Amino acid sequence: MSCRLRGRKEEWDVRASSLARNTFNPIRDIIETLRIQPNPNKSYIPLSVGDPTAFGNLQPSENIIDAICDTAKLNESRNYGPTIGHWDARQAVAEYSAHQGSVTADDVILCSGCSHAIDLALSVIADVGQNVLIPRPGYLIHKTLGEGLGIIIKYYDLLPDKNWQVDLESLENQIDENTAAIIVNNPSNPCGSVYTRQHLEDIIDVASRYRVPIIADEIYEHFVFSDHEFTALSSLSKDVPVLTCSGVTKRFLVPGWRLGWVIIHDRQNILRKEVRNGLLSMSTRILGPNTLMQKALPRILKETPQSFFDDTMRFIESQARLAYTELKKAPGLRPIMPQGSMYMMIEIKTSSFPKFDNELQFISQMCNEQSVLCIPGKCFNYPNFMRIVLTVPEDILREACHRITKFCEDHILKQHLKKMDHDVVSIVNDEKNVKSKQNLLKNIT
Amino acid sequence: MSCRLRGRKEEWDVRASSLARNTFNPIRDIIETLRIQPNPNKSYIPLSVGDPTAFGNLQPSENIIDAICDTAKLNESRNYGPTIGHWDARQAVAEYSAHQGSVTADDVILCSGCSHAIDLALSVIADVGQNVLIPRPGYLIHKTLGEGLGIIIKYYDLLPDKNWQVDLESLENQIDENTAAIIVNNPSNPCGSVYTRQHLEDIIDVASRYRVPIIADEIYEHFVFSDHEFTALSSLSKDVPVLTCSGVTKRFLVPGWRLGWVIIHDRQNILRKEVRNGLLSMSTRILGPNTLMQKALPRILKETPQSFFDDTMRFIESQARLAYTELKKAPGLRPIMPQGSMYMMIEIKTSSFPKFDNELQFISQMCNEQSVLCIPGKCFNYPNFMRIVLTVPEDILREACHRITKFCEDHILKQHLKKMDHDVVSIVNDEKNVKSKQNLLKNIT
Ligand SMILES: Cc1ncc(COP(=O)(O)O)c(C=O)c1O
Ligand SMILES: Cc1ncc(COP(=O)(O)O)c(C=O)c1O
Repeated sequence: MSCRLRGRKEEWDVRASSLARNTFNPIRDIIETLRIQPNPNKSYIPLSVGDPTAFGNLQPSENIIDAICDTAKLNESRNYGPTIGHWDARQAVAEYSAHQGSVTADDVILCSGCSHAIDLALSVIADVGQNVLIPRPGYLIHKTLGEGLGIIIKYYDLLPDKNWQVDLESLENQIDENTAAIIVNNPSNPCGSVYTRQHLEDIIDVASRYRVPIIADEIYEHFVFSDHEFTALSSLSKDVPVLTCSGVTKRFLVPGWRLGWVIIHDRQNILRKEVRNGLLSMSTRILGPNTLMQKALPRILKETPQSFFDDTMRFIESQARLAYTELKKAPGLRPIMPQGSMYMMIEIKTSSFPKFDNELQFISQMCNEQSVLCIPGKCFNYPNFMRIVLTVPEDILREACHRITKFCEDHILKQHLKKMDHDVVSIVNDEKNVKSKQNLLKNIT
Repeated sequence: MSCRLRGRKEEWDVRASSLARNTFNPIRDIIETLRIQPNPNKSYIPLSVGDPTAFGNLQPSENIIDAICDTAKLNESRNYGPTIGHWDARQAVAEYSAHQGSVTADDVILCSGCSHAIDLALSVIADVGQNVLIPRPGYLIHKTLGEGLGIIIKYYDLLPDKNWQVDLESLENQIDENTAAIIVNNPSNPCGSVYTRQHLEDIIDVASRYRVPIIADEIYEHFVFSDHEFTALSSLSKDVPVLTCSGVTKRFLVPGWRLGWVIIHDRQNILRKEVRNGLLSMSTRILGPNTLMQKALPRILKETPQSFFDDTMRFIESQARLAYTELKKAPGLRPIMPQGSMYMMIEIKTSSFPKFDNELQFISQMCNEQSVLCIPGKCFNYPNFMRIVLTVPEDILREACHRITKFCEDHILKQHLKKMDHDVVSIVNDEKNVKSKQNLLKNIT
């Protein structure tokens, strides 16, 4: 009695799409494979989380909370907005972003955070099979987003000994006829580098010669320490189209609130209507970011006092100095002093720690013994390094540095320890480190 | 002196990706081509906007605003959350969605509105080149999202004379070996239909026989008029995996706040880990919906009084009756009484209006004369119909119905007018319609 059903499958067989299977978050994966079990006898210190608000010591400016509450009471903060964002919010972003060059509300597309801005920019400017160049080391959401879309990700190198400047030759070498864009992340996660005007001009020059647009990930704009200056890449471009991605996430200390933007800089009208319309079309997929944030945005951008930003930066800079000073004393490590953002990269001289095959083992063992978790360089495509986050409370950062140092002392090859410089010897003699000294001596003898 | 640069293009040539070019919003496009110019002498009434809060007459329950303000003061409402959403928010959605069958927090993925939920569900369950079946007439975001992703969209018919039930034969005929999913939208935009338990079982039966998962777009869950009952499709499925998409958008009257969700119903574990993980991976693309809404969500879902929902539905139902009664009097129109949601579909008997080639011309001319804008059926893939939104204030809806009627009287073919039934004659004799009567007579004689 059974009549054959056209198109009928005998068994259920439901697979995830290639988009989903290719959208792969390496950080989550790597951290999961670490199988860390923090030492239950020591408080757990995650120096891993790139969330400046995670510990509660950094709080947004009061006016932001007020703006949200006032705005929530207004009907227009609850309506659907245009998918690229309300005009007044886009206008406020344009004014806030005047340092990027001339920007009008029409050049701004509001997004659900800077990730979404990058997703939009990438998905419009690069097609399946084209390639996009991203920095190594670099924040891998660029890779996750790109590869999900079927875009090929290629890497250009940053130079640790030159404050993580771009290796311009490496950049140039990676470009080919299928290169759809170069992503430049300044100030950088994970490096903490801040590029000079001259260096940015050199990067733009490469892009200009090869006619490749730039996606500027400037979510850490203005996150620079004293004696450094932030220059918006777009402000220097004469012809290269630049899609600048940013948002309120870090600077306003509201990462969960998901308000970011893409700003189109296209002085020579190279992107023409197609790319602009593409950004517009793509923004309809999720109907725009939440309008409560949008409607509060003009007040948030205009009313937050400069002193609030200054306080944040003063704190992060002093934390950077603290961590740098402390970790320079750790045998077998080489911290690289950042110039901005909120991270520091630290080289792990793996030859000094022959017990560990790679930095992953070093990091998981350090967490298991000292309950301090750092992000392995592998998560940024850069082995033998680890990244720490500088925004944790000062006492916690200090304690973490001590524990990291202790771990290095415990595990460093004896011969290497003998070569330790004066700094380390002094820490070994430090009152506070009697116990660590005993351990250290036990190790040596 | 110029050395040839490998991969260098002679000219700038930047195109938008196929994803962007294929992400096409037909509504915007169709409305733009209408070139409407509302009559400056009449107040403009857009019956087109599917935003229940657009006119300000429908406001969310007070407790929602309070919940947001209180929550904004908490640090955890500003941190990054897990990309699938905070556990307590997902748990609250699970409890709120108990009518869908057993749901745990692990089955819930929070999204940036229901559009994003559908985007996620579609992008995980269907691959490039596979097809997805959507209703005709239907809300075309399904088409926009699917076609952008390279998914082929096919249509199954709804039956206007059977309260827009699914034509099961048409549904079955559309399925083939490449069918990745069926989208069922109940209650329906634009139809206002509400399916019975039996009808939903019949739909599930087709999906079960052909082993095709269902995406249930239930953003209008509980939006049903008296004498109708809302049944969650997932609650009836024994084997068919169902991804139910919903959110707070419509029911809680906060469309701009962008909080939606996908709920995975998979009683036979057919989707296995791959699809679950796919949804997880895809949620990392934009790092989850805003955490302020997430953290307020448990209070929003639990504390909003039933009376608030009842008031909304009582209002929409009475508006539906008003519009139905009024528009039945309009010569050449056939309104179809909805059973829920917030829309009504109205057939335009185009043979009665030979001046107009199609419903698009009818609608733009109506707007130009009467300043009332309806959405043409073409926007739902269903010519010769138009959709009105029922949530506008009562006096405005009444005025709009009168103007629509007037427009029909002005433009209907004389012979057709003579066939008008008693209702229309009475409106012609109505005091209020003296002017319209004069016009009408002028037309006849
Ligand atoms: C370099 C960089 N870009 C983008 C983002 C994402 O920012 P958002 O939270 O606004 O999506 C981050 C977050 O850590 C980042 O470090
Ligand atoms: C049937 C249907 N699904 C989904 C949506 C999108 O809802 P959201 O605003 O939550 O993204 C709408 C909005 O009108 C709709 O009518």
